[in-house]
Amino acid sequence: MTDVLRPVGRVASPLTDRATAPRQGDEGAPPAVLEFDPAVAAALDGLVAGAEVLVLTWLDRADRGVLTTRPRDDPARPELGVFATRSPDRPNPIGLHRVRVTAVDGLRVTVDHLEALDGTPVLDVKPVLRGER
Amino acid sequence: MTDVLRPVGRVASPLTDRATAPRQGDEGAPPAVLEFDPAVAAALDGLVAGAEVLVLTWLDRADRGVLTTRPRDDPARPELGVFATRSPDRPNPIGLHRVRVTAVDGLRVTVDHLEALDGTPVLDVKPVLRGER
Repeated sequence: MTDVLRPVGRVASPLTDRATAPRQGDEGAPPAVLEFDPAVAAALDGLVAGAEVLVLTWLDRADRGVLTTRPRDDPARPELGVFATRSPDRPNPIGLHRVRVTAVDGLRVTVDHLEALDGTPVLDVKPVLRGER
Repeated sequence: MTDVLRPVGRVASPLTDRATAPRQGDEGAPPAVLEFDPAVAAALDGLVAGAEVLVLTWLDRADRGVLTTRPRDDPARPELGVFATRSPDRPNPIGLHRVRVTAVDGLRVTVDHLEALDGTPVLDVKPVLRGER
């Protein structure tokens, strides 16, 4: 397959260092701004403050060659396949972040917490479905 | 960005027609088998029957040029930006499917329901986190 990802925006965040970034958004990640490309402005229609959404990012600093990993919180445990973990290092390093929109200002969408690093490409935003609540 | 997706497997499903496929997995989608590429076998270590996972797919029959859409269940509603909907037609048509693994047999992983069409590329599998339950 030669399908190429087209980022629709970028993350603006105070997080710049992968080593010190929280592993998940609910572990102390700061608010962030999603800065969308003007070309996709229409796709934001209906996205409002208060919405619970899933933000999909491309973890561009991840290692795509990693297939197994040792859980960071328990180095004594055996290696696990990355499909059994949320490690950013994986063949297709798509970040999945469940967040709440706190403000929408044109192409700038602020979310309550995001563990992605500054500059991370944004791929997609999806509303949370009933079954995912 | 020129990042290219590398499918790690394919969906085997009785669903072959987008027009009649259910919109979401909890709307009557049938079980499906994820057939993984031998190259990523190690990434499956630790994935077991009973696990609740998020399957990410590449909706290769979607229209990437669509930015707004009319909700299918209520055509009288105004168009919404695709980021406020779960339409498969969107700039990066990544399908997100929350499913339960019912069997693992080598490279074949059976899940309880999946609304993706037969042959859809699989991009990733992630365990469901506490906050996503």
